[in-house]
Amino acid sequence: MPNVTVLGGGRVGGAIALDLAGDPGIEVTVVDASRRVRDRLARHGMRVTAGDLSDPEAVRRVAAECDLVIGAVPGVMGFETLQGVIGAGTNAVDISFFPEDAYRLDAAARQQGVTAVVDCGVAPGLSNMIHGYAGSVFDRVDQFACAVGGLPVHREPPWEYRAPFSPLDVIEEYTRPARLRRGGELLSLPALSEVELLGFDTLGVLEAFNTDGLRTLLVTSDTPTMVEKTLRYPGHAAKIAMLRDTGFFGTDAIPLGGGAVRPLDLTTQLLIAQWQMRESDRDLTVMRVTVDGERAGKGIRWELNLVDRYDEEGHVSSMARTTGYTCSAVARLVLEGRVTEKGIVAPEVVAGMGERFRAVLAHLGQRGISFDWRDGDGNAVVVGT
Amino acid sequence: MPNVTVLGGGRVGGAIALDLAGDPGIEVTVVDASRRVRDRLARHGMRVTAGDLSDPEAVRRVAAECDLVIGAVPGVMGFETLQGVIGAGTNAVDISFFPEDAYRLDAAARQQGVTAVVDCGVAPGLSNMIHGYAGSVFDRVDQFACAVGGLPVHREPPWEYRAPFSPLDVIEEYTRPARLRRGGELLSLPALSEVELLGFDTLGVLEAFNTDGLRTLLVTSDTPTMVEKTLRYPGHAAKIAMLRDTGFFGTDAIPLGGGAVRPLDLTTQLLIAQWQMRESDRDLTVMRVTVDGERAGKGIRWELNLVDRYDEEGHVSSMARTTGYTCSAVARLVLEGRVTEKGIVAPEVVAGMGERFRAVLAHLGQRGISFDWRDGDGNAVVVGT
Repeated sequence: MPNVTVLGGGRVGGAIALDLAGDPGIEVTVVDASRRVRDRLARHGMRVTAGDLSDPEAVRRVAAECDLVIGAVPGVMGFETLQGVIGAGTNAVDISFFPEDAYRLDAAARQQGVTAVVDCGVAPGLSNMIHGYAGSVFDRVDQFACAVGGLPVHREPPWEYRAPFSPLDVIEEYTRPARLRRGGELLSLPALSEVELLGFDTLGVLEAFNTDGLRTLLVTSDTPTMVEKTLRYPGHAAKIAMLRDTGFFGTDAIPLGGGAVRPLDLTTQLLIAQWQMRESDRDLTVMRVTVDGERAGKGIRWELNLVDRYDEEGHVSSMARTTGYTCSAVARLVLEGRVTEKGIVAPEVVAGMGERFRAVLAHLGQRGISFDWRDGDGNAVVVGT
Repeated sequence: MPNVTVLGGGRVGGAIALDLAGDPGIEVTVVDASRRVRDRLARHGMRVTAGDLSDPEAVRRVAAECDLVIGAVPGVMGFETLQGVIGAGTNAVDISFFPEDAYRLDAAARQQGVTAVVDCGVAPGLSNMIHGYAGSVFDRVDQFACAVGGLPVHREPPWEYRAPFSPLDVIEEYTRPARLRRGGELLSLPALSEVELLGFDTLGVLEAFNTDGLRTLLVTSDTPTMVEKTLRYPGHAAKIAMLRDTGFFGTDAIPLGGGAVRPLDLTTQLLIAQWQMRESDRDLTVMRVTVDGERAGKGIRWELNLVDRYDEEGHVSSMARTTGYTCSAVARLVLEGRVTEKGIVAPEVVAGMGERFRAVLAHLGQRGISFDWRDGDGNAVVVGT
């Protein structure tokens, strides 16, 4: 029986572990340094182990003893963790959204004969897969746009926001320059730029702004126009930009009270406290992807919309559902030997093979996550099973 | 020849000193700890002395040697400075806008036979005088409202603001609760509350929000409805309130990098740097006062508007003009023996005697500062000379 180790048992890692453990044919263990996290998962019958994931040697030892590792640690630890797993020669599926370039680990992974699928959440992740699948259906893809966000159901001023994953990673998302492609040209724009308003059925108007979410697509795809934006309730970006533009994201230390303080560090502390999701919070995930291109000499357009909500029965946040179940779907493909590529493997490469993408969609569909998927005439697009 | 000592030779103190020194019958000395400030004033022919005004004994020694002291230090030092001057038995006119209750010094001032006019700037100051003068003209004052602000001519996002006096005092103004009276009841509302939009000829629309500017009026006047608001370009208050509501004005220390930091201290550092007026900045002062009441059995209404601009010839900021020349006008009244009241004297008490208020208006008028003053029918109100 294959055994899987999940590194990090937070909201998303925990959901992945429980999802995989639901399959009697898979043995799952969660490693986490936090007793609170381990106790919570143990109450759900999970096998848990204490472990310091910031220690590369500890990661390597744990990884050496299993068939597949799921990387679900905060972004800041993600790259080193994946490096440790690859070093142990173990396959990996990662959702830690680390800032480093994953392809720096490609040679090592190939050398070890390891399959390491990275950025395997909802976006990046599922969004990339749609692009990859479009590449296999269209003759040519001209334009790809993804807007995605995790939002609280209850809109509480001034932020109208709760972070459905590590708040530190949200701040990273708001500060990292957004790379995108427009008319074949690579652009790097400030995060939070080009705010536009988009209407969504049942949700009303949201705002979308540039963030750095294309990532592997900038390497694997030659689609001339690609953009990824983050969705929030309107007004959020302007408030964050105001903090940024007035120096509160500054990384130069300022002398203060005998010491020195980086404004970003204080801002992070204040925002983390305000954005932390509480037990009583309910979130939703909203995503819109449009793809334009050509097929058999004709223009073709897809528009996909997804609105997913908190699971009241299982107490699983929507972000954990959409991110985690995409990850567990791909984990199963890897365990079944259906992902044969070695090295760093992008989600769009996984989905470039239609049957694999259909397996992911089926996995998500069984968990109540499905797209409203239309063509340019508004007709439903059916993806064969 | 009477001699006057000006404590603090900053923008406003410097303007007062130069204005008084223009009278050949007055001898003026400025005391300031800053060499840069002293050098600048010395170039204009001012007598200057080095002195540490944060040392009460030094203040007392300086005050003992002159006929009148002008207090023009930052608010945080104002109360102690005035206490020192009163202790020396010397008359004073103060514009330091200190947070403490001036009347705590009333008994000491009476005992010393000292006249200490406080809050003697444009607002508080000139605004209070309008109320005091109305009290002498109306049979009954029902309502008094003042909106006032010092603004940069050039609107630079995101603040569209430069502090025409100590930026620390601006932050104090944004955090101190605003006391006002409504229907006879004393209210204390958060600073920045009740934002309303007001239109001004030549300037367009400004926003007005509650700040704690009534001060002595709450003691000296029984007018049932009184409010003081601060004017800014629209949007400013919401940005400040956002910082406040998200913890950036917090005064509880937060553990950070081995030490502990009060968010307000960091915020103050960042804002001071962004709000500091530069040599090239041009400011304007805008003020609107309305007074409603009854006279001879009929309703009477005054509306006064003032827009004053930077003095390009003398290089005097508009805030220094309106604040400083009000102060120097009252200083002259004191030197001429026309303010006979002892103890803490509010500007509205000075102006309660019409001839004294007319002298202040004449002094300001000679310097190009005059109100557009209308009654309820829009007809010009002429204040006799």
